This record gives sequence, C-alpha cells and structure tokens, in this order.
Amino acid sequence: MSDYTEMGRKILKTQPFSQFLGTELDALAPGSVVLSLTVQDAFKQQHGFVHGGVLSYLADNALTFAGGTLLMNCVTSEYKINYLRPAIGNKLVAKAEVLSTGKRQAVCQCKIYAHQEGEEERLVAIAQGTIIKIEPKS
Amino acid sequence: MSDYTEMGRKILKTQPFSQFLGTELDALAPGSVVLSLTVQDAFKQQHGFVHGGVLSYLADNALTFAGGTLLMNCVTSEYKINYLRPAIGNKLVAKAEVLSTGKRQAVCQCKIYAHQEGEEERLVAIAQGTIIKIEPKS
Amino acid sequence: MSDYTEMGRKILKTQPFSQFLGTELDALAPGSVVLSLTVQDAFKQQHGFVHGGVLSYLADNALTFAGGTLLMNCVTSEYKINYLRPAIGNKLVAKAEVLSTGKRQAVCQCKIYAHQEGEEERLVAIAQGTIIKIEPKS
Amino acid sequence: MSDYTEMGRKILKTQPFSQFLGTELDALAPGSVVLSLTVQDAFKQQHGFVHGGVLSYLADNALTFAGGTLLMNCVTSEYKINYLRPAIGNKLVAKAEVLSTGKRQAVCQCKIYAHQEGEEERLVAIAQGTIIKIEPKS
Repeated sequence: MSDYTEMGRKILKTQPFSQFLGTELDALAPGSVVLSLTVQDAFKQQHGFVHGGVLSYLADNALTFAGGTLLMNCVTSEYKINYLRPAIGNKLVAKAEVLSTGKRQAVCQCKIYAHQEGEEERLVAIAQGTIIKIEPKS
Repeated sequence: MSDYTEMGRKILKTQPFSQFLGTELDALAPGSVVLSLTVQDAFKQQHGFVHGGVLSYLADNALTFAGGTLLMNCVTSEYKINYLRPAIGNKLVAKAEVLSTGKRQAVCQCKIYAHQEGEEERLVAIAQGTIIKIEPKS
Repeated sequence: MSDYTEMGRKILKTQPFSQFLGTELDALAPGSVVLSLTVQDAFKQQHGFVHGGVLSYLADNALTFAGGTLLMNCVTSEYKINYLRPAIGNKLVAKAEVLSTGKRQAVCQCKIYAHQEGEEERLVAIAQGTIIKIEPKS
Repeated sequence: MSDYTEMGRKILKTQPFSQFLGTELDALAPGSVVLSLTVQDAFKQQHGFVHGGVLSYLADNALTFAGGTLLMNCVTSEYKINYLRPAIGNKLVAKAEVLSTGKRQAVCQCKIYAHQEGEEERLVAIAQGTIIKIEPKS
C-alpha cells in the first residue's frame, strides 16, 4: 500500500458521511483515486436499483479526492453527472482522475461501475467537475 | 394536505435510501416539490459541513419528483450542481420546479437552502437537470 | 438608457466574435443582462434550425455579462446548457441573471428565447454556469 | 480517406454555421470524430483569446458527430463544458468520442486543443454531453 493510499484512507475516515455509508478507498495516486462501496438495501430507490444520490455522493467524493492529490485542501465547486443505466449489483467502484490542473483548480472525471457477482462490471455513471483549492485562513 | 402531497409522501416512503436519510416531502404540486432533511452528524464531511453528496442526493431526488408530477414514471438522466457555500445548519430544504417540459423529458431546477436556528435560510446549492419518462415494458 | 447599458454596449463592441455575429445588448443592470441576435441563414444547421453552437455562444456571453456586473473583470469557467426545442425564428433573446455571488465567483442562469413574427416567444435553451473573477496581473 | 470520413464531410457541408466558420472534419469513425477550425481574428473576445462561444460551438458539433456515428439522426440534448485556459493559437482541434451508448442516446466527451505554430498543442476545454436519437416522422 502506497503512502498516498494510506493518507487517503486516513482522510476518508474523518468524513462522517463516508463512514456512515461504508466507503472504502482502494487506491490513491497523484491525479487519481479508486473508491468503492458495498451496496446495502438501504441504498436503493423504489425500483430496486441503487439510488442516484448514492452514485452522486460517490462521484462527488471521488472527484474531490482525485483533485486533492494535486491541490491539497480542496472542495468540489460543481460537477455534472450522467446516469447511463440502472445500477444493479452488490458493489460500486468509482474511478476518478484529473483531466487538467492549474494553480487554483482541477477539472476531474469520474466513472462509476456496478459489480454483480459472476458478471462483468458495468459502467453506470460518468461525472465531470471542478475542484477548487481552499486557501487556509490566516 | 393536497392529494398530490399525499401521493408524493407515499412514493417517498417506497425509496429505501430516502427513508435511510430521513427525507420528508413538505409539498408537491404539478411542476414543483419541496423536500426537507434534518441534518445528522453522520451527514457531514471532515470540516463539519454537510457533505456535498447529501446535497446532491437531495437535488437529484427533488428534480425527479418535480419532473414526475408531469411525466409520471421517470428517472433523472443527468444533472449538474453548483455548490455555493458551506452547508451549515440543522435542516436542508430543497425546492425544485420544472422549467420546461415535453412529451418525453422535463428540464428542472433545484435550489437547496440550509436552515440554522435563529438565522435566515441560506442558498447553498443550485442544480439543473433532465428528467426522462420511463416507458412501461409491454 | 442606463449607464450600465451604455457601458455594456461599449464592452460588447470590443468582442470581435460578438460583432461578427451581430449581437446586441438590450439591457444591463447589476446582476442581469439581456442580449439579442438577429438570426441569419448562416447561423443554421442542416435541418434549418439555429445551430446549437449559436445558442451556446449566446448563453456563454450572457452568463459572463451578468456575472461581470458584480465581479467586474471575469471569464466563464464552466457552464451546462439544455436545449429544449428546435430554435426557429428570426431573433434570439438571451436573458441572464446572477443566482448567487461570492468574492471570486458568481453562479448565473441564462434562458434563451426564439422569436418568430406573429408568434409568442418560445424558451429554447437554459444554461447554468460559473463566472470567475480575473485578478489583474501586478 | 474512409467512407465514414467522406460521409461526415458531406454532412458538415450541409451545416451553414459550420461553413460560415470554416470547420473541417479531419476524421470520422464509429464512436469518434476529429473536427478542426482555423482561428480568424473575428473569432476572438476582447482579450485576444478565442471566444468561449467558438469553443462551445466546436464541442457541441463534435459531440453530435461522435454520437451520430452510432445513433444516426440525432441532436445534442445537453452538455457541459469546462474552459481550462485561454485559447491562443491559429488552429483549434476538437476530438470527441462516445463514452457510453444505448438505443436512444449516447453520452460523449469532447476535448478541445489549441495549436500554435512551434508549440505543443494545449488542452483548452473539456465537454461532456448527451446526444439523443431523432425519430423520423411518419
């Protein structure tokens, strides 16, 4: 496990909402991150698919972690997400990477895959967003 | 309470993730909805603000409910959200409305406000997205 | 004509692309702008509707002008646009307003209407985007 | 030159706005397209950079062409674009590809590069959007 990944896991543990949902950080490197989440029945919507809000949370968080490897302290300023197909399965994996970075902001992309036992992973959502550096208050 | 609001509350109760978080439906009318959520400590990120993923979930759900009043069975196809300032407070209120509608899709907007006791509500996020009608399988 | 409107027209005249297309500034006030464009045959796509790129240009420019009334020197950082129906007519009108503003950025919305003689104006596109302040180089 | 590329060039020639600006189609294949545009002084904004509206037009058009290789008759439903840095140079190249496709829609990504003589191309904008199939009227 890299130092980056170790550091990322420590930060993830300080996020109450990520702990609440059970998010795990699989890998972190400069400019990229992989987050995953075991799907609980409580994460679903009325048709039995994972609720879009869970996918959105995961995309938001992955975008921020990816940008954070280059910008350090940062927040998501905005993003857009396209849902591609119903998210069915027992595990979600979010892979985010920095597409472009400047001094103050990074533009990142996140792809979310749903995993179901015995089947290939399926791409279920794609997000693009802006991460901005937070200046420490003096 | 209108029939619409009553119907909306029944649908909200069939969404496990909305029940998990404790979302309430305050009002539903043709083309608009108001959802609210009591903030729990578990909803926060590492700086003590409500996690963006909670705001995103709320926006996604409100957009779908607003569009659903005109399209009936529908899902969110895509949306974008701008976070405006840290979400601080004990309650979130999401107000969504349909901006334009066609046979198959509606474009909706959602504004999310954070409420803190003794203070005026503050606009913390704005989302715009596309809701698409689901055709029943024959 | 307000001083704001007069100032806005002067700035618009310094934009070669806006002059190339013939954009006019109908009104400018703190937090809002109205731009319009006479549709030329050269602005169309293969089905005879105004090309989406013309609507996008107009949205982008209107978002920047609206934000610029509060932030002064600024650029569009990002935006999203939903096309609602084919843009048919001889005139386009873009109405943009600031939805939220901070020290460094403003989030704005733009609605674009198509006008055809003898008919009511029709909403053809809606955009939401982030305008950021440019710091002068010292 | 492939049959695809030849077909794409014929379609591009039927778009008055693309002819007006001088857009060229460099390559078209199932799921991807490369468009390019020679920068004219008339395409600039007041600071001497290419106007965001030109980049937006190019992104919009490239997204539609990429989606069109799989969906046939289609239009851009919506997209978002992030501007990354000032677009400086004498040529713009837009490379778009389909990220995911279904029966009725495709989600595509477009990267726009600015070329300046004697320098490496620079990524100046990234867009993500939804292309939807148009059903022929019977």
